[in-house]
Amino acid sequence: MEGVTQLAQRQNAVDQAMAIAPAAQIGDALADIDTPSLLLDLDAFEDNLRAMQALAERHGVGLRPHAKAHRCPDISLRQLALGAQGICCQKVSEAVPFVAAGLRNIHISNEVVGPAKLTLLAQLAHQADITVCADHPANVEALSDAMLKHKASLGVLVEVDVGQKRCGVQTPEETVALAQRIQALPNLQFMGIQAYHGGLQHKHGLAQRQQSCEKAVKLVRKHLEALQQAGIKCPVVTGGGTGSAAFDVASDVFTEIQAGTYAFMDTDYGSLDWGESLAFRHSLFLLGTVMSTPTPERAVIDVGLKSTSAESGTPAAVGLEGVRCIAVNDEHSILQADDPAHRPALGDRIRLIPSHCDPTFNLHDTVIGVRGGYVEAIWPVSARGLSR
Amino acid sequence: MEGVTQLAQRQNAVDQAMAIAPAAQIGDALADIDTPSLLLDLDAFEDNLRAMQALAERHGVGLRPHAKAHRCPDISLRQLALGAQGICCQKVSEAVPFVAAGLRNIHISNEVVGPAKLTLLAQLAHQADITVCADHPANVEALSDAMLKHKASLGVLVEVDVGQKRCGVQTPEETVALAQRIQALPNLQFMGIQAYHGGLQHKHGLAQRQQSCEKAVKLVRKHLEALQQAGIKCPVVTGGGTGSAAFDVASDVFTEIQAGTYAFMDTDYGSLDWGESLAFRHSLFLLGTVMSTPTPERAVIDVGLKSTSAESGTPAAVGLEGVRCIAVNDEHSILQADDPAHRPALGDRIRLIPSHCDPTFNLHDTVIGVRGGYVEAIWPVSARGLSR
Repeated sequence: MEGVTQLAQRQNAVDQAMAIAPAAQIGDALADIDTPSLLLDLDAFEDNLRAMQALAERHGVGLRPHAKAHRCPDISLRQLALGAQGICCQKVSEAVPFVAAGLRNIHISNEVVGPAKLTLLAQLAHQADITVCADHPANVEALSDAMLKHKASLGVLVEVDVGQKRCGVQTPEETVALAQRIQALPNLQFMGIQAYHGGLQHKHGLAQRQQSCEKAVKLVRKHLEALQQAGIKCPVVTGGGTGSAAFDVASDVFTEIQAGTYAFMDTDYGSLDWGESLAFRHSLFLLGTVMSTPTPERAVIDVGLKSTSAESGTPAAVGLEGVRCIAVNDEHSILQADDPAHRPALGDRIRLIPSHCDPTFNLHDTVIGVRGGYVEAIWPVSARGLSR
Repeated sequence: MEGVTQLAQRQNAVDQAMAIAPAAQIGDALADIDTPSLLLDLDAFEDNLRAMQALAERHGVGLRPHAKAHRCPDISLRQLALGAQGICCQKVSEAVPFVAAGLRNIHISNEVVGPAKLTLLAQLAHQADITVCADHPANVEALSDAMLKHKASLGVLVEVDVGQKRCGVQTPEETVALAQRIQALPNLQFMGIQAYHGGLQHKHGLAQRQQSCEKAVKLVRKHLEALQQAGIKCPVVTGGGTGSAAFDVASDVFTEIQAGTYAFMDTDYGSLDWGESLAFRHSLFLLGTVMSTPTPERAVIDVGLKSTSAESGTPAAVGLEGVRCIAVNDEHSILQADDPAHRPALGDRIRLIPSHCDPTFNLHDTVIGVRGGYVEAIWPVSARGLSR
């Protein structure tokens, strides 16, 4: 647990921060928030939290919201207060500030490989109920060795590839063999399977998503049947996301769903066909300032790649008729107006919907909660940068 | 200068950091560095610094390296030690840790709009020689008001749009009018013009870049002639970047060049046609670990969008024959091997070249300097997240 170098570096950041006023303080009007800043519309956010919790409860399925979407313990605590049974993290180090904030039931929805990470994992397992994923016998042996060494115990889920083509075992036979290996190893407990299909979350059509989801569920059933035939109990089936949640909860397969983006939405999820099914409101915005109006049609704002991710496309300007965001540079986004009459003016403040909320949160030290035109909360994005 | 909220938040980060061991310590072998981490090959980095400094000196042009590429004062200090005349920053808050580190000649190569930023700008101008860009009369009036109020003085350059289609005045007449306005306003000094064309930096062909550069230089000359005809001295013409540096220094127009990426290179710049002209070595790498090998052809590593930006494409795996990085997710990159014999194994450590160094640096709290297989330096990316 040596943290001296990192501590000194963060202390360095503290010294510098003293010279820079915060972007906002509680009670500030919207107009007083410095830019670029990440804003959370608390009314829309709370509506989203309630809607997903209600959906899960209607179907008797647990909600375990994914914290990788925001990396902010204050957000997880609000999800727990409404009935979420725990959270997911994607990395071991990411889980540290959540444990520090009092979260005690964390599923690390990923494989954990490497000695430093296994040591940290064991330390977390002393403080909270921790489960992880595995998809390789050598990895479960390393998990067991680390837990033995540190006198900790760990729940392990076999990750199953149900079409994502990323991590996960490929066949029911592998699932059974890995579950048996986990059961045979000291200080590990086989907890179930994870079947997350990220790709299907983003399919545009509702029917298309439903079909993909049904296909994935069919695969999950094969793995569950194989486990049953081998006499292995599988208490947990975890997976699902914002795009597929309505189908996942009704599948009779998942015991819990891992959705994360539903709390915020982004242009990627926002552009999906939601049909008559559950939809969520945009609650997350980037606030920018117009810092140049060099031509009658062009306005340039101070939000760039260091404040919003752009690998999923440009962010979308809110409430500006006939104005498109046509480019995102390191520290600028370029707004193009069809009609000069609609071009924003120098100094105008612009709200943008990010195209991908997870990496966008990870660019900010704080998210500013607003309600009724005022700053109500400033929450640290405590796991920002913690990807080990 | 209230920093209480931000300070408390960063302190919070310090408390958490205590539980997480640093990714590396000075003297560690490469094999002991935890992942994902950002590595700097110090030999290649120093070669790049010397090469660009020598190029500028051969042509009697100043080098003012752009700190937005790295946000790390330790890097700027090394550029200064080799003869750079100062640095560029892109944002006011970004400049704060550089001033704190002793940098005293900083050009903010951007328009600064909004009261909080103008206050911070005046405070910086008390501590260092600061210049900024402007492209609007209302903005130069706001600059003058802020400097008057805080009893500071500021150099101002007119930004000229030479084809970038972002910020900047459009005509020589506008340049003259804005220069005159700057000269007439108290506490401002007209310093010259900025003519930066980001787009041309990335044109693939060497001849294509040269032609675009010559076109831009022609435009710059028109603005310079107009200033001369109006009797306005223009001591500084700043601009240029890594892709155009060889032409910029020979143009007889630029008094200084603002290149930044040359110190590191990325796949975007690395893929350019450099012909016989100056080329630079890749010095910046992401270090990852293979955490899943679910199929004979697929290996998944622990470097994702939270450790490397991907809006300019996927990063490139180094030294792996027949292996391509085919996708970057939040916390994973997927490597695909043409031949299973070439697929990396579980636990293998992989080096990647980022596709865009500027936003990639901004995802990391530290950059780890390596030489001869060992960690020689750990430098804080002190301006990480400072985009106001």
